[in-house]
Amino acid sequence: MAQHVVIIGAVALGPKAACRFKRLEPESRVTMIDQTDLISYGGCGIPYFISGDVSSAEELQSTSFHMLRDKKFFKDAKDIEVLTGKRAIQVDREKKVVVMEDTASGKIEDLSYDKLVIATGSRPKIPPFEGVELKGVYTVSNLQDAVHIKNEVASGGVGSAVIVGAGAIGLEMAEAMTDLWGIDTTVVEIEDQILPGLISRNLAKMAQRHMEENEVKFYLSTRVLRLEGQGRVERVVTDRGDLDADIVIVATGVVPNHELALKAGLDVAPQGGIVVNEYMQTSDPNIYAGGDCVVIKNLITAKHFYHPSGALANRQGRVIGTNLAGGNARFEGAVGTFVVKLFEISVGSVGLSLAKARAEGFDSVNTLVIQLDRAHFYPDKDLMYLELTVEKGTGRVLGMQGLGNKGDGMFARLCAVAPILKYCPTVEDIGNLELPYSPPFSAAMDIVNALGNTAQNLLQGRNRVVDPDEFVRWWEDREKGDTYFLDCRGWGNAQPYVEKYPDSWKHIPQDELRYRLDEVPRDKSIALICNTGVRSYEAQITLDQAGIRKTFNLQGGMAAVKKLGLDPVQES
Amino acid sequence: MAQHVVIIGAVALGPKAACRFKRLEPESRVTMIDQTDLISYGGCGIPYFISGDVSSAEELQSTSFHMLRDKKFFKDAKDIEVLTGKRAIQVDREKKVVVMEDTASGKIEDLSYDKLVIATGSRPKIPPFEGVELKGVYTVSNLQDAVHIKNEVASGGVGSAVIVGAGAIGLEMAEAMTDLWGIDTTVVEIEDQILPGLISRNLAKMAQRHMEENEVKFYLSTRVLRLEGQGRVERVVTDRGDLDADIVIVATGVVPNHELALKAGLDVAPQGGIVVNEYMQTSDPNIYAGGDCVVIKNLITAKHFYHPSGALANRQGRVIGTNLAGGNARFEGAVGTFVVKLFEISVGSVGLSLAKARAEGFDSVNTLVIQLDRAHFYPDKDLMYLELTVEKGTGRVLGMQGLGNKGDGMFARLCAVAPILKYCPTVEDIGNLELPYSPPFSAAMDIVNALGNTAQNLLQGRNRVVDPDEFVRWWEDREKGDTYFLDCRGWGNAQPYVEKYPDSWKHIPQDELRYRLDEVPRDKSIALICNTGVRSYEAQITLDQAGIRKTFNLQGGMAAVKKLGLDPVQES
Repeated sequence: MAQHVVIIGAVALGPKAACRFKRLEPESRVTMIDQTDLISYGGCGIPYFISGDVSSAEELQSTSFHMLRDKKFFKDAKDIEVLTGKRAIQVDREKKVVVMEDTASGKIEDLSYDKLVIATGSRPKIPPFEGVELKGVYTVSNLQDAVHIKNEVASGGVGSAVIVGAGAIGLEMAEAMTDLWGIDTTVVEIEDQILPGLISRNLAKMAQRHMEENEVKFYLSTRVLRLEGQGRVERVVTDRGDLDADIVIVATGVVPNHELALKAGLDVAPQGGIVVNEYMQTSDPNIYAGGDCVVIKNLITAKHFYHPSGALANRQGRVIGTNLAGGNARFEGAVGTFVVKLFEISVGSVGLSLAKARAEGFDSVNTLVIQLDRAHFYPDKDLMYLELTVEKGTGRVLGMQGLGNKGDGMFARLCAVAPILKYCPTVEDIGNLELPYSPPFSAAMDIVNALGNTAQNLLQGRNRVVDPDEFVRWWEDREKGDTYFLDCRGWGNAQPYVEKYPDSWKHIPQDELRYRLDEVPRDKSIALICNTGVRSYEAQITLDQAGIRKTFNLQGGMAAVKKLGLDPVQES
Repeated sequence: MAQHVVIIGAVALGPKAACRFKRLEPESRVTMIDQTDLISYGGCGIPYFISGDVSSAEELQSTSFHMLRDKKFFKDAKDIEVLTGKRAIQVDREKKVVVMEDTASGKIEDLSYDKLVIATGSRPKIPPFEGVELKGVYTVSNLQDAVHIKNEVASGGVGSAVIVGAGAIGLEMAEAMTDLWGIDTTVVEIEDQILPGLISRNLAKMAQRHMEENEVKFYLSTRVLRLEGQGRVERVVTDRGDLDADIVIVATGVVPNHELALKAGLDVAPQGGIVVNEYMQTSDPNIYAGGDCVVIKNLITAKHFYHPSGALANRQGRVIGTNLAGGNARFEGAVGTFVVKLFEISVGSVGLSLAKARAEGFDSVNTLVIQLDRAHFYPDKDLMYLELTVEKGTGRVLGMQGLGNKGDGMFARLCAVAPILKYCPTVEDIGNLELPYSPPFSAAMDIVNALGNTAQNLLQGRNRVVDPDEFVRWWEDREKGDTYFLDCRGWGNAQPYVEKYPDSWKHIPQDELRYRLDEVPRDKSIALICNTGVRSYEAQITLDQAGIRKTFNLQGGMAAVKKLGLDPVQES
C-alpha cells in the first residue's frame, strides 16, 4: 500500500530516514521540506571547512563519491522530492496536513501526509548579551553562517577572534581560527575549566595547556557582559576586562527545535526535546521524530537526556526509515560520547563524567592512569591519559574520559568502552576487557585493562591516592612540614628534584625501600612519587606492611604533574 | 596465614601472577622457577627485535621505566625469589612438592608448595621435515633463538630466507627480514591463502598483494618436503620446487606444554592444553594454570579452545594472583582476537572467521564493506575493508575481520566489536553501535555501523551480492554472454572500462537508471558495479521495482577488485 511520507528538515536525520524508507518501499512517495536551500550537509565538518581542511562548502554537501546532495540528486538518485525555502509552521494531526510557508513569497500551502517525520534539529543557545545582533557575531549552527565566517577570515580582515564557550565546538573553532589563519584567538568560558562537565579538571587543564602552546588564549571563570562596536563588533566586554574582537563566535550550546511539535500537542520533555519511544515514534503514532530535536534514553541513568549528535541522528534516521515501511527497528538510547581533535591531541569521553555522575546521584570517584599507548618497547609510542568514572560500592563503571595524541589510539580506547557501558560493566570487566594485542597497537596489559585494575585497587582501599592538582597544593604548602615527599624512582629521575629541593624532596628507590624503612618518618603524611603511579603503589604496599599507612600514591605520577605544567623543576 | 607459592615458568603469566599475589599478600613467600636464564620478556616483541625496531633483547626484558626484569629486580622490587636453570620434572600432588632438575648440573631437588601455578607456556609445533636439525633453522619461540637470528642477519651473511607458515608471526618475521635487512624472503604456506582460517580469502589476497609490493614472495598451496644443506641449511625442497635459503624460520604454530600437568594426573583437554575452571584452577584446587599451556572457554562457541596470547596470559595471571590470596576473581574466557601490522597496513580479526564459524556448525555468511575510515570530507582519510561474519536466520554476529592502514583506525574498529561479542549481538546491534563521532576519527555512519546494516540487508535478501573474486571469474568468462556487466557510477569512473571493453562493460549511472530501464536486458544475470557497493545496491532496488531481479551487487565494488589486483583496466 503506497503512502505519502512527509519529512520536515533535510539535514542528517531527514535524508537518512527518507532514503532508507524509499529503499524499503520504493512505490511510496516521500516529500522532504526545508526552510533553507542548503540541505543534507555534514554540519560536524563546519570547523574543518573554516580551517581550510575542507576546501569548499560543497564538499560537506557531497556524497563520498563526490555527487552534490541537492534537490536534483534526491530526485534522480533517490526518487525523493525536496521542497526548499518552505518553513513548516503547523501540523494539523486531525487532517494529517503540514501547513508550510514559502520563505520568499510568504505564501501558505498545505501538504498532506500519511506519516510524518519531524527532523527540525536544534538552534544555537544564544545568551542574552547586548550586542549579539552586531555584524561579525556568528554561531556555528549552519552552513550559511559557516560560509560567512570563512569568507571573512579568508579576506584577511580578521586579526582577532573571541570564541564564547569552551565546549568541543568552541575549541574546534579556536583551532581553526589559529592554526591556518593565524588569528589572535581567545576563548571565554564562564566555568572554571574547558570542556566543563565533560572531562575532569585535570584532563581539561592538560588539554588547555596544549592549546595555549598553540597560541590559543583562555579566559576561564569569565562572564561576557556585552558585545560592543559601531555597527560591527569591535570588542567583548567581560567581568575580567575587554577583549578586542574583529569576529565573535558564540558556541554556548544548542537547544532543540521542538516548538512545532509542542504546538501540535505532541509530548515534549520538561527540559526540552520531543519525547519519542524506542521506535522513534512521538506521542502520535503517525508522527516520528529524531535527531537534534528529540530527547533520548540515557542507557546509564535510564532517564531522558539531550545529546545532539550527527552520528546518532543517522542511526535514528535509519530506524525511522525502517519503521515507516512497517518494520519494528529499535533505537534503545545512548550512553553519550564525544571525541575532539585539538591540534596534536585528542580528547574524548564515553558515558558519564565524574561531574555528571555525581549530579545524577551516583556516589562515584575517578581513577587516573597514564600509560604508553602501545608496547613500551615499540618505537612509535606516546603517553595516554585515561580516567575511569566508577560507582563506589558496586564497582560499576559509569564512564571513561581521556587524552591522547591526535592519532586513532585514543579513539580506539573510547570505542572499546562505549558499546559495553549499557551492559553495566564493573571495574573487573574493564580489567579483563578483551582487546586485540600486538606491540604496534597495544600493550599486553593495555591501558584500558590497567585502568580497570587500578580502579579496583582504589575502590578496595588498597591503592590510596592523591590527585595531581591536590599533590601540587601539598607541595606548595611544603614549608608547613605536614607532608613528606618520597620519590620512589631511580636516581636518574629523582636527581634534579633532590638537588633543587634537598630539604623537601626525599628519595628512596622502590627496590631499596624494604631495606631502608627506618628512613621513613612515621608521624607525617607521605606523598609517594614515581613516573606514572605504578612503583609508588608498590612502595605503598611495602610501607603498609611496615605499619606506615598514612601514605598517598600520586595518581598518574610525575607524568601527570608535568602534563599539567606544574613540574617543580621546570620553569613554567 | 602466610603461605609458599611456587610458580613454574617465569614469562608473562608467571611473573604477573607472582607480583599480583605479593601485592595482596606481602607476608607470603613466592618462588618462581624457570628452565632458562632469560625470564619475563615480551615474546610478542621478538619480530620487532629482529627487524631492529627494538634495539636490544634487554628492552624486551625491561619495565616501561627501563629496569631489567632479572632475578635481582624480582628480589628487590617485588620480594619474589626466582630460580633460573631449574626444570620442573614432576609434581607430587600428595606431598605438595615440585621435583626440579638443575639444567647445568643435572642435580635433582624438591621444592615444597602450599599452592602451585603451572605457567609452562607453549613450544613450536615443528613439522616432521627432514633437516630441521640443520644449523640456520630457527623457530620464533623464545628470546634465545631470537638473539641467534638477529646475530645472523646483522652479520650480513644472510642473503635469502624462507619462512615456513603464513600465520601472523610468520608474516611479521617476513616483514622483519625484508624491511630492514633487505633479505630475499619467501613465505611458504601449505594452505591456499595467507592467515588461513583467520580471515577470508579476499582479505588475505589483499594483504598478500601488499606484502608482495614490499618484496616478500609467497608460495601458497606448497608443501615443504625437506630442508637440505651441508651441516647448515642451504635450501628448502618443496613440492613446487627448491628455494635457496641461508636461514629458515619455522612458524607453523605452537602447542601447549601440558606434559607436566598430564603426568601429575591433572585434567588435560583431548586436543591438548590443561583444563582450568573460571578461577584458573586445574582439577587440583591447590594448582592453578594459565597462559599458553591451558585451554580456555570460547565465549562464542562455549567450547574449549586454544588461544595462546600474551595479553590473555597477563589477564589470567592477575586472576590467579588474586585467587592465590583467597580472592575469587574470574576469567570467563575469550572470543579470540588478533591484529598484525604488515608494512603499511594492519590486518585483524575478532571472534570467529567464516571458516571457523562454518567448522563450528554455524550456518553463516560474510558481508564485505569498504568505506573511508573517517568523514569522507576530512583530508587524511583512507579506505578500510571490513567483513562481518554472521549467522543466517538469527542474525547473530560471530566475528569481524578487516584490513586498514597501519594506523590505529583498524585497531579501533576491532576494539569496538571484540568486547561485545560475548553478549551475542545481532546485526542490528552492530548497525546501532554507539561510537564517538568526530570527522577526524570516524564517519557519522561509521564503517562498523554500515557493516551491520549491510549484513542485515544481505540476510533479509534485500541486498543480493557477488563476492569480488567470483565477480572476476564471471568477468573472465564474459565471452560466454551469461552476465551483463552494468557500471552504475558516473562517467568519470566508468569511462576507462567502457572504452576498453565497449561490448562487455555497460554503463548507466544510478541516478539515470530509473529513466533508462528499457536498456537493461531481462534475460541475463546482471552484475551491478560501483565504487564500493553502495550505488549498485540502490540500482538493484530500482531494478527490483522494475521486475528485473536476477541482479548481483558487487560486494565492496571496484575498490575490492582493485585491492585484489584484478582491475580489468590495469595491467597487473
